[in-house]
Amino acid sequence: MSSDSSDLLLAVNCGSSSIKFKLFEQPDLNVLISGSASNVAVKGARALIKYTVHAGQLEEEREEEEEGMAYDEVFERIINHLESSSPEHQGRHAISIVAHRVVHGGTQSDPMLIYKGHEEGLELLDKLSEFAPLHNHRSVTTVRSCLEHLPKSTQVLCFDTLFHASLPPHIYTYPLEPPKEEPPIPLRKYGAHGLSYASILRDTADFLGKPQEQCNLVVAHLGSGASVCMIRHGKSADTTMGLSPLEGLPGGTRSGSVDPILIFHHTASASEMVEQGGGVVSKAELVLNKQAGLQALAGTSDFGKIVSRLDATPRDEPAELAYALFVDRVLNFVGAYMLKLIGAGESVDGVVFSGGIGEKGARLRADVGKYLSAFGGQVDKARNESKDEDEGNVKRISSDASKIGIFVCKTDEEAQCARMARDWMNEHGRDDS
Amino acid sequence: MSSDSSDLLLAVNCGSSSIKFKLFEQPDLNVLISGSASNVAVKGARALIKYTVHAGQLEEEREEEEEGMAYDEVFERIINHLESSSPEHQGRHAISIVAHRVVHGGTQSDPMLIYKGHEEGLELLDKLSEFAPLHNHRSVTTVRSCLEHLPKSTQVLCFDTLFHASLPPHIYTYPLEPPKEEPPIPLRKYGAHGLSYASILRDTADFLGKPQEQCNLVVAHLGSGASVCMIRHGKSADTTMGLSPLEGLPGGTRSGSVDPILIFHHTASASEMVEQGGGVVSKAELVLNKQAGLQALAGTSDFGKIVSRLDATPRDEPAELAYALFVDRVLNFVGAYMLKLIGAGESVDGVVFSGGIGEKGARLRADVGKYLSAFGGQVDKARNESKDEDEGNVKRISSDASKIGIFVCKTDEEAQCARMARDWMNEHGRDDS
Repeated sequence: MSSDSSDLLLAVNCGSSSIKFKLFEQPDLNVLISGSASNVAVKGARALIKYTVHAGQLEEEREEEEEGMAYDEVFERIINHLESSSPEHQGRHAISIVAHRVVHGGTQSDPMLIYKGHEEGLELLDKLSEFAPLHNHRSVTTVRSCLEHLPKSTQVLCFDTLFHASLPPHIYTYPLEPPKEEPPIPLRKYGAHGLSYASILRDTADFLGKPQEQCNLVVAHLGSGASVCMIRHGKSADTTMGLSPLEGLPGGTRSGSVDPILIFHHTASASEMVEQGGGVVSKAELVLNKQAGLQALAGTSDFGKIVSRLDATPRDEPAELAYALFVDRVLNFVGAYMLKLIGAGESVDGVVFSGGIGEKGARLRADVGKYLSAFGGQVDKARNESKDEDEGNVKRISSDASKIGIFVCKTDEEAQCARMARDWMNEHGRDDS
Repeated sequence: MSSDSSDLLLAVNCGSSSIKFKLFEQPDLNVLISGSASNVAVKGARALIKYTVHAGQLEEEREEEEEGMAYDEVFERIINHLESSSPEHQGRHAISIVAHRVVHGGTQSDPMLIYKGHEEGLELLDKLSEFAPLHNHRSVTTVRSCLEHLPKSTQVLCFDTLFHASLPPHIYTYPLEPPKEEPPIPLRKYGAHGLSYASILRDTADFLGKPQEQCNLVVAHLGSGASVCMIRHGKSADTTMGLSPLEGLPGGTRSGSVDPILIFHHTASASEMVEQGGGVVSKAELVLNKQAGLQALAGTSDFGKIVSRLDATPRDEPAELAYALFVDRVLNFVGAYMLKLIGAGESVDGVVFSGGIGEKGARLRADVGKYLSAFGGQVDKARNESKDEDEGNVKRISSDASKIGIFVCKTDEEAQCARMARDWMNEHGRDDS
């Protein structure tokens, strides 16, 4: 860990009730401190902030817990701690770049800079909040916080939608007459989890020893938000999330795709607007995003807990239903994307599992993986269940005889966000510099 | 055509602006008269009624056109004509059974009888109208008409959802908390096109010389309403339509599955109720069912016209987009169902194209079919494009080398409906008989 090379880059990943962060040295992006805050701005819950200080092999951990703190207060606490707790850098170095993972970037095809005197981007962020009601509001809060408390820093907005800018029109179009009133952004599929897919593509291509642009992958990012992406020639060619992250797979508390008229038979006055996370959304969006998914079926949004209940006596039917339903919906998209790649004459370099569920869920990987026998794929039981930490982020779990490579990949959205921000600043920089 | 055996059975298939009908002799179900009415109750359009009288090899056609007729008026005109135009039967025989294809039957797992003194079923039909807003209202109208004008006849309601009663819970469940107010029927996937799938399964199994319960098929019923069904061991194991026929594939004027929050950004006060086809539906349902689909993309809901515009100079981009989008969405579900069958260790006896688009669309079959190469499938160009009318309803279009059977099947919902009604009456009959 060298301290005399450059200043610091902070990558921030804002969820609706969480903040993940990593503090990097520039330009090599060695991690100095990583951490997360959970239960942020959740009524009646204490926010829990965890820090891990990385110093060579040594790791030092610290936790703090506090009740009743607003989202921006928790974030300020983190900034203060980061600035003061890295003694080698204190005084001499400071955070010059904050790389924000932002879920929705609309039609933006590049990262966006926001800094003192150049704050127009905040308007776009505000405008987009209605399309990612659980996330974008939080990014607005965090960007404002940085402008106030780190006044010299540049905010680099790294949109999760950027990776899907390559989607062709017949994939991103919804077959619907244009709306009567012009919406803030075109009503089309934008996708999400783009930083994660970029990180997985990079690491899997490295593992395979292939240039990214020659890779065809079907990647399942399965976490409390879950999606699948078809990567063709290194680019997103289809993905399950849509105009908003609601479409596609069910998640911890999200319904995923359902009959679009379902909500009108479920929730009276579904289009009535209600407050949520600092913004305003329709009742329907709140119900479909927060009162649905695994939580609605099994009483918990924690997939690991659901799996642990699968072999209970007497049978735990809600857990069994939630598990079977989730596996089924994953298969739907894996099947679709495999057909669309292989049927178009492409070879598939790998089916990749990632995200919390994808990385930890050996049983899910086995249960999805056995369907890949349709294409000659085969999961190796020992490899799949091995808990050995590999050297890198990618682990092969297919057998040697498997005709399809099957992998687990640790995704690192913060590192990808940091790389994107660093590279963008190197190439383009600020207008005032 | 024997006239002294029994009385007559009329099968009726009510669309939102169409009525298809076939008059059969019982018990053999030879077709005496078939026909259709189009543009029914469409503002400013003339209803066109066509009749074909089948007498051995001889066919006699008749058309009439009239403006401003209500749905029930057109239907009464048809009944009167049918009763009077079959001279051999006149006076001696009359319509004793009317078999109604009804789109939505909720959780009904059997056909239902309605006749004088036993009219409770009308309540259910009314209740279900909100879940098939373009169709069920029409069936209510037609059943009432029959009770009035054919007072001795028994109405046998053959629900399109019956075929999907076999769907398992992890397929039919939507991951959503129960609604606060009890809905008229459970909010789950019901599917549709069931009579068509039953007809296709019967004919394909016959063609293959296999018992139905041993058949695994992926069937695409592609018409102005379009869906795909995975048939496993002769039973519906998954299908694309959901709580209502809106879910899944786009149709002539239907959006199909889209991000469930899309409509809230498209249509102001989406949950406001408006009148439609004799019933009341939310604005959202109207927009998603009637102002969407191929029509919204290419200005016509007629797939044949779209195909004819594909090779235009200069390029016809709306037609190209509509075509590519439709093919893509069909592939999504074909891929999903192929994976779920083959990956579970099943063999697939056939991929079957049906419905107006599936039966006539050689280009679509070729373009979808080439993706079946992922499973060793291959469409034979000559067989696919041949216009020879085969003996039966099923035509093989796969090459001899193809590892997957690929078929076109003429679906006959009215004949299936007639068989179902006849068999149900034979086994169960009326309470008063």
